Amino acid sequence: MELPLEFKRIARHFAPLAGAGALGLADDAAVLGAIPGQLVVSADAMVEGVHFPSGEAAALIAQKLLRTNLSDLAAMGASPLGYLLTLAVPRRTEEAWFAGFAAGLAADQARFGLKLLGGDSTSTPGPVTVSLTILGSAYAVLRRAGARAGDDIWVSGTIGDAALGLLALGGEVADPDGFLRQRYRLPEPRLELGRRLVGIAHAAMDVSDGLVQDLGHLCRAGGLGAEVEAAAVPASATAHAAGPGQLVRRLTGGDDYELLFAAAPGAASAVRAAAAAADTPVMRIGSFRAAPACVTVRDEQGAEIALTRGGWSHFDAAEP
Amino acid sequence: MELPLEFKRIARHFAPLAGAGALGLADDAAVLGAIPGQLVVSADAMVEGVHFPSGEAAALIAQKLLRTNLSDLAAMGASPLGYLLTLAVPRRTEEAWFAGFAAGLAADQARFGLKLLGGDSTSTPGPVTVSLTILGSAYAVLRRAGARAGDDIWVSGTIGDAALGLLALGGEVADPDGFLRQRYRLPEPRLELGRRLVGIAHAAMDVSDGLVQDLGHLCRAGGLGAEVEAAAVPASATAHAAGPGQLVRRLTGGDDYELLFAAAPGAASAVRAAAAAADTPVMRIGSFRAAPACVTVRDEQGAEIALTRGGWSHFDAAEP
Repeated sequence: MELPLEFKRIARHFAPLAGAGALGLADDAAVLGAIPGQLVVSADAMVEGVHFPSGEAAALIAQKLLRTNLSDLAAMGASPLGYLLTLAVPRRTEEAWFAGFAAGLAADQARFGLKLLGGDSTSTPGPVTVSLTILGSAYAVLRRAGARAGDDIWVSGTIGDAALGLLALGGEVADPDGFLRQRYRLPEPRLELGRRLVGIAHAAMDVSDGLVQDLGHLCRAGGLGAEVEAAAVPASATAHAAGPGQLVRRLTGGDDYELLFAAAPGAASAVRAAAAAADTPVMRIGSFRAAPACVTVRDEQGAEIALTRGGWSHFDAAEP
Repeated sequence: MELPLEFKRIARHFAPLAGAGALGLADDAAVLGAIPGQLVVSADAMVEGVHFPSGEAAALIAQKLLRTNLSDLAAMGASPLGYLLTLAVPRRTEEAWFAGFAAGLAADQARFGLKLLGGDSTSTPGPVTVSLTILGSAYAVLRRAGARAGDDIWVSGTIGDAALGLLALGGEVADPDGFLRQRYRLPEPRLELGRRLVGIAHAAMDVSDGLVQDLGHLCRAGGLGAEVEAAAVPASATAHAAGPGQLVRRLTGGDDYELLFAAAPGAASAVRAAAAAADTPVMRIGSFRAAPACVTVRDEQGAEIALTRGGWSHFDAAEP
C-alpha cells in the first residue's frame, strides 16, 4: 500500500525537526518525562492576509509563528521545551513551500533550543492558517498582575518598528535598509531577559497588540493607572527618522514583541544588570499610579497626547 | 479605554471554561504545577468544508474538535488535563456562534473532566479553522509500535459508521434515526478503555483515517503484516442495513475514532475484562503475521478483498 502524500511530507520535512518526546511523529501523541519546575503553555494562530501578506516566504511565516509563541514564554520568564504545530494549507501547495517552512523552523529550533513535538496538517479551501502551541518550563513565573503604585514602567528594545514596518511594506514609510520591515516580519523573543527578570519585575507581558493597549492590561491586572512619557519610549533610528507624525502609530501599533514590565524604583539597578546580562536594551518609560486603570501618555511639556485607538484587535480593526 | 471586542468575547464565552492553570486567560501563558506521571500532548485542526460542513452547529464543531483530540489521549492510555484552542473565524461571526461553541466545550469539559488552559482567536477571510492542543498524563502509555507476530487485532465499538454518516448527510445511505450522521458528527473517545489497556495491549492507536490505513501504521511500526477477517469487523445495525456494497467504504472510511489494538491471544480474557469495565464493546478482527508490512482483508471464503484505497488523507483525497 502506497503511503499517502501527507505521511510522506511529514516524514520528509517534519520528522527531522522532532524531539525525543515526539516519538518520531509516528504515534498519536508526544510523551514528555519529568518537567523541570512548572509547565508553561501558550498558543497562537496566524492567517495569511491577516498576520502576514500573501506570498510571504514560508520560512518567515514559520519563524514568526514560533517567535510570537516564544515571546509569550519570555513574558512569563519561562524556557522553551518544545511545540506542536497545525497547518491548514491549500491542496496544491508545492513541496518547496513545506521545505521552506521546515527550514525556518529548523533554524529557529537551533537558535532557541527547542524541538517539534507533534501536530497535524490538513488542506483548506481558504488562506494558509497556522497554529502553534508552545510548551515551556519555569520554577517561578512573571505574571501580568502584581504591579504596584510607584513602580517604574520599563520596555525592552525599541517600540513601534513593526507597525512602521507594516506601513513600509506599503511604501508609506521610508525604510531604506529594510530594518522596519524585518522587525515586522521577524520578532526577537526576549527569552533571556524574561528569565532574568523573574524575582526582579513585579509584573510583565509582551507587547503584541500595541504599547498603550498592552499597558492597559497591566493596569487592569494591577488596579492601577499608568503615566507614560512619550519622549522616553525608545525609538530605533529608522523609526525616529519617520518623524513625530508617526508617534501615535508607534505607541499603538502591534507586533513589537518587546517585554513590558513593572519594577520598583529601587530595583532599577537590578533591572539594568539583568538587561546587560541578557544583552538586551531596556528603557524606563513612566510609572504606575494609584489611579483608575487608564493609560495616559504625556509629551515633553506634560500635556496629554490624545490617542484615538488603544491598540489593535483582530476583530476590531475594521470596526468604525 | 474601551476594551476591544476580542477581549470582551474571551471574558464572556471562554473565561468561564478556564481551569486553574489558565490564570483567567488573562496572562501570556498558562502555568501547570506537578504533572502526575508523564505529560502526553497532541494537536489536531479542523477546517469548515473539509472536516465539517458549512453551517454545522458551533457546539458540534467544538465537541468534535475536542473529542478527536481526546481520542488521541485514549489511544495512548492517557487521562486529560486540559487544552489550548485557536480559532480563526470570519469577522462578522455572530455572538451566538461563540456562545454555541463555548456551550459545546462546557458540556464536554464536564463529561470528560478537563478545562480550557489558553489559546488565541483571530479573524480570517476564509473558512472557520479551529485547532486544539490537548494535554494529558499517564504513568505508562500505549504506543503504535510493539505488536508481535501472532497477536490478535482488536477494535472497539463499530467500524465504518462515520464514513457512512458522511454519505448519509448527502442522502446516499439510509439513516432513518440519524445514528450514522451522529457517529460522523460526534465521536466517542474511548478514554476509559485506553487507560485500562495499558499493560494489556502490545500496541494501540485510534482509527481516524480508516481501519485499513491505520492498521497499516501498526504494521509498519511493528514490522508485521496483518490479516483481517471482514466478517468479524463489527458493524452497527444501521451500517449492516446499508448492505455488503458498503463494505470497502466501512473498512477504509475515516472518522470512527475507535481504538485499534494488538494483544497476545493469551490476553484475550484480560482484554474482555478491560472492555467490560470500561463499558465499551470490543471485537477480535484478525491477527498480525510475520510478513511484509501489509494489510490483507479476507472474505468468509478466505479470498482477499481488493481495496482500491487504503484510507483517507486530506491531501490525497482528490488525487487521481
